[in-house]
Amino acid sequence: MRQVSVQAPATVSNVVCGFDCLGFAVDAPYDEMTVRLIDSRTVRIREHSDFGLPLEADKNVAGVALMAMMERLEGDTGFEVEITKHIKPGSGVGSSSASSCGAVVAANHLLGGRFSRAELVEFAMEGEEIASGEKHADNVAPCIFGGFVLVRSIDPVDIVALQSPPLFAAIIHPQIEIKTSEARAILLRDVPLKTAVRQWSHLGSLVAALAQGDYGLIARSMEDFIVEPVRKSLIPKFDEVKTASLGAGALGGGISGSGPSMFMLSEREETAREVERAMRNVYSQTGIEFNIYVSGINPDGVKIVS
Amino acid sequence: MRQVSVQAPATVSNVVCGFDCLGFAVDAPYDEMTVRLIDSRTVRIREHSDFGLPLEADKNVAGVALMAMMERLEGDTGFEVEITKHIKPGSGVGSSSASSCGAVVAANHLLGGRFSRAELVEFAMEGEEIASGEKHADNVAPCIFGGFVLVRSIDPVDIVALQSPPLFAAIIHPQIEIKTSEARAILLRDVPLKTAVRQWSHLGSLVAALAQGDYGLIARSMEDFIVEPVRKSLIPKFDEVKTASLGAGALGGGISGSGPSMFMLSEREETAREVERAMRNVYSQTGIEFNIYVSGINPDGVKIVS
Repeated sequence: MRQVSVQAPATVSNVVCGFDCLGFAVDAPYDEMTVRLIDSRTVRIREHSDFGLPLEADKNVAGVALMAMMERLEGDTGFEVEITKHIKPGSGVGSSSASSCGAVVAANHLLGGRFSRAELVEFAMEGEEIASGEKHADNVAPCIFGGFVLVRSIDPVDIVALQSPPLFAAIIHPQIEIKTSEARAILLRDVPLKTAVRQWSHLGSLVAALAQGDYGLIARSMEDFIVEPVRKSLIPKFDEVKTASLGAGALGGGISGSGPSMFMLSEREETAREVERAMRNVYSQTGIEFNIYVSGINPDGVKIVS
Repeated sequence: MRQVSVQAPATVSNVVCGFDCLGFAVDAPYDEMTVRLIDSRTVRIREHSDFGLPLEADKNVAGVALMAMMERLEGDTGFEVEITKHIKPGSGVGSSSASSCGAVVAANHLLGGRFSRAELVEFAMEGEEIASGEKHADNVAPCIFGGFVLVRSIDPVDIVALQSPPLFAAIIHPQIEIKTSEARAILLRDVPLKTAVRQWSHLGSLVAALAQGDYGLIARSMEDFIVEPVRKSLIPKFDEVKTASLGAGALGGGISGSGPSMFMLSEREETAREVERAMRNVYSQTGIEFNIYVSGINPDGVKIVS
């Protein structure tokens, strides 16, 4: 096989109390990508969408991820990539991850699956590094593994696929820009040990609640004592969106990635639709443009479509 | 029924990365207690062991826990308690918890089970408060629930019984005294956010590994970046015991409670016996007296025996 097309899904990272380690993939939105094997040690990129992605391989997240893979290949093997992007860069739902993960999963498929998923995470993290200046796996890991994943370690890469019951996400993306540098600078360097203990007690119980399919405990566990209290100031109407969503029946949620998107999880799809309406009510009064997605949890990550 | 006898097990709290929230119960050692209903609003205590426990109800952890329960009872109902203590106070394996939990579980049995386990945890925590000056549930919760438990919150009490595969603990108790106040004072008040993230990534993956019965991941997850590096200085030969135990096949472990006991978990009982030998080798060269226990995880907590 010389060519394959994939759908690379959006992902939510920094899931409430799971800052920097817990993420999940959703069914929609997703990017469409086609990757072709070529007999030249190079990566060529074309974009069919209008985001003005850099097309030089070493400046494009998919390109960088594929070059990292290429370093592990012998001979004159390279890749041609066509990207039709639907996930807006900077939205906080893993836009760059979708590109780099779609590329490496597709390429690995063409190579007969010679790399493990952990290796694909490593390659895709190289893309994340040029996108955000930092290697992190909490978007690429769910994008490649699907479902809820916990990143125990990125060096070495150790990704834990979590068990979870059916859940539905409502994600609102206000069309404002939050600079990653600002979202990072605003965080405290040190946290009180007592607060850290509360945070990890909640993460531990969230992981247990997901494994046990205990929706009540999922709801009680979704509290973030460290990041949300600081970062929510960057997102207009954060508290109103959260209050209205919980009022509509959401289990809980918070900031997706470093924002500006917010997500809320619900037990049932109808509830997630109610949450969507509640979010829309709050944001339609702001004058800020926004998109809302309602989606199930994507159990498989990047999907081979042809 | 007017009288019941129970066995109240030792417990390990502060399980590696689960400082202040993760604990488990073991089969041995345990305290033996007999509780009798009496028609007088009072708590009477007798000790059949030689630890010189305070016998005034308001100074004895079992007495305080029972008085907390008594406040929720109408009429002239009180308790008579006989304690045969086997778990040495101050050993770091939940000696005070065993007394207070044994008392409230026995009393609740005599009262027809009118209180929930969460309520029993509340009563027993009152005992913990007079023992350590602080309410905490990470010994009393496993003592009452059995198995591995995670304390999401103590106000309100929210205890998560965790799924876990068969595991065996080797626990060494060096006969030295560590003052709780010193063990607490030595901890840093603030921790770097980056370190806290590593800690909670590991706790999340430990909870997932227990739920999935993944022994390799249990081993990789048992790292403590915050408390052990500081507190191990209070325990002679801590590093040597740990290294020898891992060499003997232990999955991992650390300080039990605030020490001086150390515990190591193994997949099989034979391995735990090897770990026991390794611990004994290290400590027999110190001139410090010590006890070692090898035990399975106690799935039920306090046990009614007659």
